[in-house]
Amino acid sequence: MNRAPIGIFDSGIGGLTVARAIYRHLPQESTIYFGDTARVPYGSKSPDTVRRYSEEILHWLLRQDVKAVVVACNTSTAYALDRLQQQSPVPVIGVVEPGAAAAARACRDGTIGVIGTAGTVASGAYPHRRVIQQACPLFVPLVEEGWFDHPATELVASEYLAPLRRAGVDALVLGCTHYPLLTPLLARLMGPGVILIDSAEETASTVADTLAALGLAASPPHTLPNTGASDPPSHRYVVSDDSSRFLTIGARFLGERLTAVELAAWE
Amino acid sequence: MNRAPIGIFDSGIGGLTVARAIYRHLPQESTIYFGDTARVPYGSKSPDTVRRYSEEILHWLLRQDVKAVVVACNTSTAYALDRLQQQSPVPVIGVVEPGAAAAARACRDGTIGVIGTAGTVASGAYPHRRVIQQACPLFVPLVEEGWFDHPATELVASEYLAPLRRAGVDALVLGCTHYPLLTPLLARLMGPGVILIDSAEETASTVADTLAALGLAASPPHTLPNTGASDPPSHRYVVSDDSSRFLTIGARFLGERLTAVELAAWE
Repeated sequence: MNRAPIGIFDSGIGGLTVARAIYRHLPQESTIYFGDTARVPYGSKSPDTVRRYSEEILHWLLRQDVKAVVVACNTSTAYALDRLQQQSPVPVIGVVEPGAAAAARACRDGTIGVIGTAGTVASGAYPHRRVIQQACPLFVPLVEEGWFDHPATELVASEYLAPLRRAGVDALVLGCTHYPLLTPLLARLMGPGVILIDSAEETASTVADTLAALGLAASPPHTLPNTGASDPPSHRYVVSDDSSRFLTIGARFLGERLTAVELAAWE
Repeated sequence: MNRAPIGIFDSGIGGLTVARAIYRHLPQESTIYFGDTARVPYGSKSPDTVRRYSEEILHWLLRQDVKAVVVACNTSTAYALDRLQQQSPVPVIGVVEPGAAAAARACRDGTIGVIGTAGTVASGAYPHRRVIQQACPLFVPLVEEGWFDHPATELVASEYLAPLRRAGVDALVLGCTHYPLLTPLLARLMGPGVILIDSAEETASTVADTLAALGLAASPPHTLPNTGASDPPSHRYVVSDDSSRFLTIGARFLGERLTAVELAAWE
């Protein structure tokens, strides 16, 4: 039993879809979410820069005494996960492997499509016998504009998804934490035969398994003696840039209102 | 006469439209262009963060012994120009005032439309008796995707420009260095009665006037004694992130091939 928080980080807001899944799978766990809003996005930046930023955030989270770190950003996972795991005394879990494994389970012999940022796609982080990748750089700004089902978004998505539809993929991995907000549109364009894989759910499940295996889970509240001493879990949100935009847009990702966001004093 | 280079900076690639206009207006001047590609974009970030980044770049440019600094980024100009001018021993010229002045000249009694990033629009940097502003956050990613005349870009532009068309603006200031690449589309959507103001040309003209007034201009080559000793002007490009993307996309903004880009070692 370990009541220390789980650290979760992303280049900005998108990782809140992963945080939300973690809250659902692990309601007894406290978390600290770090969004690097001063340097967002990572998806169009170089491997070296993404690695440097990711390492800085890992060490910031470690100074907050987290018991595990979730890299809730596909680009950062694709470029930096190995290095973060080497540097960290606590387990580091990324979002790529859980999504890739779920896709492989969903269509053992079929073709898997992966959509992501330019960085994630260039990294080749999604290994599979038959995988077709497509960078979708306009999806993040469209989601941040709130145009989840706008005709322009449909036009953009039609163009990005055309090669995947032609290839007849059996499953589509949403390889960027922003993309789950486009699920209704993507499902409609891909058609009913294609399974959409949301890495957030798979990642949360991996986090739960890892904590349990290492004896790091916080005791679920119902197993505690009823002394009134068990604090409810807390969720901190910390960003590297001003918080107003994070508050407004973040609520869309989290599915609930964000009430307090701290500005990190770390640079 | 002063052969020191002019410093030009932007959050990334967009400022190359300003650099290009400066090369045309001042063919005898050497330049150093700094693109903050490791932290791009600035348009969605907070005033404090944009000011901090801009100050860091100013001081980097001053260490390169520039004789003047051009802030080739509307967001940075809107939030940081005053502060940069206070800190700088050399003249600092922004892109907002030259564009605003040109718009005021173009339609003295009419209504001016301004399109820009969320930051530029929120800053209220474009003062005029009658001005209508519109943030266009999707234009930068659409331009960087190279979709200058794509149906999706037209759909996005139609929606952003609708309030400006309804208001019957007489001039439209392209208040972001990326937007000149959308000129044909924007001109078509606004109609022939609306004057489009490209701040790059106006800014280059202001730079020329400022250098001349302060005696800082490099002698134009034809006035030099024909000793063979006059070096041709040089143009350096320096970025804070990996250069491959800058090389590819930068050529679209510069209108010519970029051959050498340096990675700054400054963080």
